[in-house]
Amino acid sequence: MAKGLAKRSENYSQWYNDIVVKADLAENSDVRGCMVIKPSGYAIWEKMQQQLDKMFKDTGHQNAYFPLFIPKSYLSKEAAHVKGFAKECAVVTHYRLKNAEDGSGVVVDPDAKLEEELIVRPTSETIIWNSYKKWIQSYRDLPLLINQWANVVRWEMRTRLFLRTAEFLWQEGHTAHASKDEAIGEAEKMLDVYAEFAEEYMAMPVIKGVKTEEERFAGALETYCIEALMQDGKALQAGTSHFLGQNFAKAFDVKFANKEGVLDYVWATSWGVSTRLMGALIMTHSDDNGLIIPPKLAPTQVVIVPIYRNDEQFDAISAKAEELKKELQAKGISVKFDNRDTHKPGWKFAEYEFKGVPIRLAIGPRDLENNEVELARRDTLEKEQISMMDLPTKIEHLLEQIQSNLFTKAKTFQEDNTFHASDFKDFKSLIKKGGFVYAHWDGTAETENRIKEYTKATIRCIPLNNKREDGSCILTGNPSLQKVLFAKAY
Amino acid sequence: MAKGLAKRSENYSQWYNDIVVKADLAENSDVRGCMVIKPSGYAIWEKMQQQLDKMFKDTGHQNAYFPLFIPKSYLSKEAAHVKGFAKECAVVTHYRLKNAEDGSGVVVDPDAKLEEELIVRPTSETIIWNSYKKWIQSYRDLPLLINQWANVVRWEMRTRLFLRTAEFLWQEGHTAHASKDEAIGEAEKMLDVYAEFAEEYMAMPVIKGVKTEEERFAGALETYCIEALMQDGKALQAGTSHFLGQNFAKAFDVKFANKEGVLDYVWATSWGVSTRLMGALIMTHSDDNGLIIPPKLAPTQVVIVPIYRNDEQFDAISAKAEELKKELQAKGISVKFDNRDTHKPGWKFAEYEFKGVPIRLAIGPRDLENNEVELARRDTLEKEQISMMDLPTKIEHLLEQIQSNLFTKAKTFQEDNTFHASDFKDFKSLIKKGGFVYAHWDGTAETENRIKEYTKATIRCIPLNNKREDGSCILTGNPSLQKVLFAKAY
Repeated sequence: MAKGLAKRSENYSQWYNDIVVKADLAENSDVRGCMVIKPSGYAIWEKMQQQLDKMFKDTGHQNAYFPLFIPKSYLSKEAAHVKGFAKECAVVTHYRLKNAEDGSGVVVDPDAKLEEELIVRPTSETIIWNSYKKWIQSYRDLPLLINQWANVVRWEMRTRLFLRTAEFLWQEGHTAHASKDEAIGEAEKMLDVYAEFAEEYMAMPVIKGVKTEEERFAGALETYCIEALMQDGKALQAGTSHFLGQNFAKAFDVKFANKEGVLDYVWATSWGVSTRLMGALIMTHSDDNGLIIPPKLAPTQVVIVPIYRNDEQFDAISAKAEELKKELQAKGISVKFDNRDTHKPGWKFAEYEFKGVPIRLAIGPRDLENNEVELARRDTLEKEQISMMDLPTKIEHLLEQIQSNLFTKAKTFQEDNTFHASDFKDFKSLIKKGGFVYAHWDGTAETENRIKEYTKATIRCIPLNNKREDGSCILTGNPSLQKVLFAKAY
Repeated sequence: MAKGLAKRSENYSQWYNDIVVKADLAENSDVRGCMVIKPSGYAIWEKMQQQLDKMFKDTGHQNAYFPLFIPKSYLSKEAAHVKGFAKECAVVTHYRLKNAEDGSGVVVDPDAKLEEELIVRPTSETIIWNSYKKWIQSYRDLPLLINQWANVVRWEMRTRLFLRTAEFLWQEGHTAHASKDEAIGEAEKMLDVYAEFAEEYMAMPVIKGVKTEEERFAGALETYCIEALMQDGKALQAGTSHFLGQNFAKAFDVKFANKEGVLDYVWATSWGVSTRLMGALIMTHSDDNGLIIPPKLAPTQVVIVPIYRNDEQFDAISAKAEELKKELQAKGISVKFDNRDTHKPGWKFAEYEFKGVPIRLAIGPRDLENNEVELARRDTLEKEQISMMDLPTKIEHLLEQIQSNLFTKAKTFQEDNTFHASDFKDFKSLIKKGGFVYAHWDGTAETENRIKEYTKATIRCIPLNNKREDGSCILTGNPSLQKVLFAKAY
């Protein structure tokens, strides 16, 4: 319906794209695979950033900034990293342009060729560990808990706004520790931070787990992840946290002296979430009427629309609206009073519904007389007349209620779409239907790959605190100690 | 003295570099001209960002994000822009690596050559105006007030940490307006925002002015700037705001329909400040004992150091310090209680003095008995014993006083080092001495260039609200209507 938005039931992929573009969140640029994040989209990303940044700092991390470019040779230093990491990277080979001799514009100056090519960072382990070598000498320098907010580039061939783009924004934490246990603890702590952020702020339930060896980050000994279920039954990996062992320390020769003066390699983690979370947010909550944003991440939580026929009415309503706005702001609620005379109330209603503002208040002359407003909730689309009495407190509570309602709804959806497969036939039909599917697996990469080949489903994770239960692998019948979580995924 | 820091009077340039590196603000990376901004430096930059971002939003701007890469052909679209803009840019020519056949690492895949090279943005006018074409149709879409926080790359040959680096962080505002006057008003408003930020937050006095035609941004009709005077008598351009006329709108064909439906090109501005401000901050206030940070930008405003001989004393002091910390935090003051037992008090004193924490409190057993603390100010290095009574309020006032003292000191320095040249001989000796030099100039680029050649001094700006006074150009004797501001510059 709204603005020619496709229906989810008819074409989920088109619906997603329509929402992103028509709610002015982002658009494709003329640069292949690179998106423009528009102000409405960036404002949501900023809310995410602020909250995550606070959570990182509350857990003792500091921000820093490392170079955009990585010398090509660095990528080869950690063997597993270079083997496993995708080679689709932007490569800088020259450092100067010059005017074309025919006056047609600029050309690359062939005399300005770099001795060693530079890679636009696809992730920063190598350049950061090259610095850590200089920063770490003693146990006193540990733990080193650093995060970076940055842009990274991976030359993806098939891109989708927010979900997979050549350039994207993210944060990458890179920490160094004196012991293996401490590093594992850090990787698990940051996974918990991500899970808390997803559930408490994005209102998006997630399953915490570890990846199989096949799906691990290149160079990691363990990759922890949070997996969410989208409305179309596909899984989305929303964040990863890696225990890197001593691999990068060895590759970049980073040793520390412990209290006894004995030298050892340091232990490492890295962890990240990206603008991909924007896609997850949209696909978790939004509906056929447009975007739905949980109140805690909504740049505008409440919009006030005046309904009037003349200046006198407008002035009276404006006075009330401005008063209300101040009261709401005093409670830390973000409010917009849309007093533009260039657009009609009906247009504004449609606009804010489409753009997902959690609460809309409409005030007309009769409302003013009755000391009432019309309140519309974006999540349920319910409308009601309510008294202006104690309105700020009511709205404060309602925002909390909407936040929790969205989580409950998503959680129920996740539960309703989580299945257990008894055999491969059952598995195939469940996967076809969509959703999370728990199934026994014999623990081999070969079986994992064959299941993927047959069904396009991958092992999303081995859930943490998984129930141990003896069984037989759905494909091979070989013994299995636990079920793992399968799904088709973004 | 401190940490082998060079003296300003002996080698200012070495002193600057020592401060940046030894106060852990930044360091050179192995990637030519690219710096690593370390946590202590990045924390100051974050304080700058937060305040600027608030000021941009308070003046109606929204953030967005545009691609890192610019197609080479875009740079040629605006004639003055391509002519005037430095051609030293990082050029991406390939999009894939592959494993070397001899197993020695990775090589660039020759089959993955881009059809059109991509330039890592040196500034984003072209890519942004290419988007604005799609975003602007009517006067209802105007003004479009957008800012971007981003990294940019200019392949500088001679780099200095913060002051001139190949990659740097900045913000770039790009706005579109329906009228020339409104655009000029915007460019001037943002100059005022920069000047207010420099003076109120960085405690750095600046001269507002416009650049001569020679020094204008490539593609601008007017470049406004703020110029600050560093301790060595050299000027530093701290921010610029450009009135771009209709140049970019014409180059990218961006027209809007006014209320009467008549089409016209839109009017543009762009404005930016960068991590260069970090260099300006350091060179405005710091001394031979290390860094000095104005309280409003200090990540840690107060540090508490315990002095104790045994656990009992430590516990008693800690209890008091934690209480004090809470009281100060309740006033919005950032406090660190350094309770580490790995470092001695003397080491900590030296450390925080060197790193520029505005106020240091030391608490020993006798202080506790007397209900006192020892308070040390970083700006004046004064120490005094003061009563704990009302300490948070006293500290709150003292932070304000330090902030204003730093500004006054810098302002006095600027005034003491601002001169008026009566003739060219006088001019040469004043410029040699260092400082801002006002002098008559005949208004021609030729004279400007000859003066630069003879003295290395450039016209920093034609100050706004300049006094009109008839005179003769110091070089040519030709008539001049006003003095302009000369200096050697960073």
